This record gives sequence, C-alpha cells and structure tokens, in this order.
Amino acid sequence: MKTVLSSAKKTVVISPDDPFVVIGERINPTNRKKLAGELRRYDYTRVKADALSQVEAGAQVIDVNCGVPGTDEPGILKGAIHALQETVEVPLSIDSSVVEALEAALPIYKGKALVNSVTGDDRMLERLLPLIKKHNAAVIGITHDESGISNDPKVRLAVARKIVQRAGEHGIPPEDVIIDPICMPIGANTKLGRVTLETVRLVREELGVNVSIGAGNVGFGLPDRPMQTATIILLGMSLGLTAAIANPLEPEIHRAVLAGDLMLGKDAFGMKWMTDYRKRTAQGQAAAPAAAVP
Amino acid sequence: MKTVLSSAKKTVVISPDDPFVVIGERINPTNRKKLAGELRRYDYTRVKADALSQVEAGAQVIDVNCGVPGTDEPGILKGAIHALQETVEVPLSIDSSVVEALEAALPIYKGKALVNSVTGDDRMLERLLPLIKKHNAAVIGITHDESGISNDPKVRLAVARKIVQRAGEHGIPPEDVIIDPICMPIGANTKLGRVTLETVRLVREELGVNVSIGAGNVGFGLPDRPMQTATIILLGMSLGLTAAIANPLEPEIHRAVLAGDLMLGKDAFGMKWMTDYRKRTAQGQAAAPAAAVP
Repeated sequence: MKTVLSSAKKTVVISPDDPFVVIGERINPTNRKKLAGELRRYDYTRVKADALSQVEAGAQVIDVNCGVPGTDEPGILKGAIHALQETVEVPLSIDSSVVEALEAALPIYKGKALVNSVTGDDRMLERLLPLIKKHNAAVIGITHDESGISNDPKVRLAVARKIVQRAGEHGIPPEDVIIDPICMPIGANTKLGRVTLETVRLVREELGVNVSIGAGNVGFGLPDRPMQTATIILLGMSLGLTAAIANPLEPEIHRAVLAGDLMLGKDAFGMKWMTDYRKRTAQGQAAAPAAAVP
Repeated sequence: MKTVLSSAKKTVVISPDDPFVVIGERINPTNRKKLAGELRRYDYTRVKADALSQVEAGAQVIDVNCGVPGTDEPGILKGAIHALQETVEVPLSIDSSVVEALEAALPIYKGKALVNSVTGDDRMLERLLPLIKKHNAAVIGITHDESGISNDPKVRLAVARKIVQRAGEHGIPPEDVIIDPICMPIGANTKLGRVTLETVRLVREELGVNVSIGAGNVGFGLPDRPMQTATIILLGMSLGLTAAIANPLEPEIHRAVLAGDLMLGKDAFGMKWMTDYRKRTAQGQAAAPAAAVP
C-alpha cells in the first residue's frame, strides 16, 4: 500500500518497497524555549532554518508543530506553512489535532498534506476526519482512544482497525491512513519496546497500511537517546515500519536509516550509502574503510 | 527453544527470551598474517589476548578458527582450546569442518561446545554429525549444500529443515542446532540482505530453532562495515535472530546489541545500558545525555 504525499514541487511515496521516510521532528516548541518565543512573535527564522537542515540531513517530510500554549495556534501555524512552502520543497506533516488550526492550515497547503494526528477517540475522529477528507490529506492515526494507551498490542491493533474503518466511512482510503503504534519511553518499563514492535507487526499483517512511530520518545530518561531511537527504527523496519518521526540531524539516526535501506535493498548500488560516506569522510567524521575480511 | 552451551565454569543460553549472544569472531587467521604466523608456531599469545578483549567487550562465546593452509590444524586447534580454557571462562565455538581437527579438539573441551559448522552437504553431515553427537556438542548448520548457495529463502529454509532432520536422526535434538541463514556481502547484490532476513523469519516460523549469522560479511567491499554489521543484526533481531558471529570490539556492533536488548526488554532496568554508558563516559567516548524531549 502506497501513501503518496506531495508539495507543490515534490512527491514522496511511503511504502514497504520505497526507502524509509524520516519525518523531521524538530519544528516543535515543546521544550524549545527560543523556538516557542519566536513562534509567539510570528517569527519563522528558526522554523525555516530547522526545515532546511533537516532536509539536508535526509528528512523527506517536515513535521510542523506550532502548539505554544496560550497563543493563536491557527494564525501561527498558517504563517509557518507559508514560510515553509517558500523555504523547502518537501511535503509537510501538519502537526495539530486542533480543528481551528487545521482549518487555517489545510486550505493554504499546496499538495497532499499529512495531518498528524488523530486518535481512536470518537469525538476526535468525527471532528477531524471530515476536514481531512475535504482537503484530501493523509492522516496519522495513533493507536489509543478515550480509554487510554493499552500495553496490549492486540488492543492497539483494534484501535488501528477502528481508525482505518472510520476513515473509510468518511471516504479516506486505507492508503491515506498511516498508523502510529505508539512508542513509549522504555526507561519506565522495558517491556514497552516489544509492545510497540509487536503492534507494528500486527498492523502490517492485518491491515497492511503504512506504519510510523514517534521514535524519539523511546529513550526518554535514559542516556544516549539517539542510539535508542535509531535502534527501535531498525528493529521496526524489518517488521514493516515504513516511516518515523525523528531527528535526522542526529548522526546515529541518519546513518541507521541509510544502513537499513542499504540492507533491505532500497539503496540501489549503495549509491546513497557511498555518497553519505564520502560526505562524512570529507568532513573528517568517518573512519577509513576496513581493509579486508577480519 | 533454548540452546545451552557451557564451559567448565559458565553456561550460556541462546533463545529468543535471553539477551542476544555475540560469538566473538576475531580468532580467525583469514587475512590476519600475524595471527596466522603465531598459530604456525603454536604460539597462542594473540589468541589469548583476542579472547580476553572480546569477552571484555561483551562476547558471550568465543569462536576459534585455526585453519591456516598447509599446517597441522588438529594440533594447532587442540593447543588453542587448551590455551583458551586457561584464559577465559566463556564457552567456545570450535570453528572447523575438518574431521581430524574436531576429533582432536572435542575430547579435550570441558563443557558443551558449539561446532561451527556443518552445511546441508550429505557427505559432510554423515561425517560430522556422529562426532558432534558423540561429544554432546551443539552445532551451527549453514543453509547451503552441494548445489551451492541459493538466493531463494525457501530453498535455504529447505536446507535448514534437512540439517535439523538429519541431526535428529543422529540423536541431536533441534535445540542443539543453530541455523545460519547465510549473510552475503550486499555490495555485489543489494537484494541479498533481504534474502538473509527472510530466511531468518522463515526458519524461526517453521523450525523454531535458534538462528545465528556471520554478520560481518554483509559489508564486505563497502565502507563503514561495522555499521552495516550492526544494522543487519538489529534488523534480524526483531525477526528472531538470536546470535551472531561478529566483532564486539567494534563500538557500533557492541552498542547495537546492547540497544537491541534494551529495546526488546532483555536488559532489566536498563542496567547493562547504563553500565556501558558510564564506562564510555568515563573513557570520554560518549556524548552527554540529551537534556529533554526535543
């Protein structure tokens, strides 16, 4: 199943047969005071810079979250979409579940956007799906509902099933629904990684839709988070994880995605791998290639 | 299914519910001139040092290959086993398919050894399985036979099935057979990673036995091999790969295995992850922990 996103200038296909898609997570004011401050002033300097650097580092889609508490989210988000469409060519993931913000952002978006996100909560589905359908967007469906986040992969699968079905009733086809099986910090409970991965497997097996996780959460509270993010992405990739919201500026994450694509035959002739290697070597970041079989 | 290996002092369990097992690959004279030179002189200085450093880096089993062309492999291997049993406490993987070498090595091994390896070749199976049974060893079965290495995962599965069945006929139970689905360099053909991974999946699904790959081969001919080795291990881990022959002295590999175990709930309270982090931080190799959610 192929999810096709687009901007005015670029199309990105998310599918198990295409290279893994990193949705750049940086444009999010949570715990980023300077960014939050700029957004309050409708200043998009950092938004633009973050978009450019993430695209340079391999992000194929840029997530835009302008949720600063107590501000005019619709106006700020609308301005950010304008600014980003002038700055980068990749499709955008519009990160809000606020009706007014989406009503402001979707009409000015040129192309097929991704809305991030809906949950399985009935009221949210009924509020947002008509809007998503009206603007012909794709949507990320997060596998929890009003009853909370279950630790049982089968319950998460049931929520995914409900979201895909409800989207269908609103005229949104399954290929436009990307399921997010929820990646929780494992520092509190080390079993939660398996729950996420098993949900990835079940969703792929039963629903066949594309699957994305907010991978950066997994290492919250533990050191060396980027390595943990990279690892959950790779573990998921062989189970059919097709995208992740993550920070491609972290070298571990950037390289893991390239290496995963290489191993899974999604980097013809290893061209992307070699190009990245040469770039890093030129920057003095890479070790010399190994001489021979050990 | 649990494969239990042992030395005089230590037991190692290989299973999907236990931490991933790295079988240290360094003691192998292929392309290591100095090691080959020492082995010719029955000098085990490097053998001992390599064993110690690999155990220190997390290897739970040490592979011992003494195959220097034109030498007395049985005598050299026997000496190496003696030297290693004095030096490290972990079980050994005796890496030879030469009857005389195994006949020299197995009787002096204290514990339950792993023999690396047999293929599905009839003559090899009939020569080696009785010896393996006699000494109550476990064995790695590589999924090719006299007809060569197929690129079809189903053919590799059929060879695995044959090895497990033939072992059974010789009184070796399935838990003592670890299947190696073959990891080929992907530089020549980027589809080969998928063939390996799909074979891992099929073998786990149909036969339920433990699975190990010689992961270091995958990046042959391409730069940044350790990262590729680490990646194929992680991609395999979520499909049921339970062990790999690899070099734990490479930081990428060492860290990938720790991170994989952490994500899969095999590192209770993240103790191993934290210990490793503190060790690397003390050595000045690690970045500071990320401060907060981005």
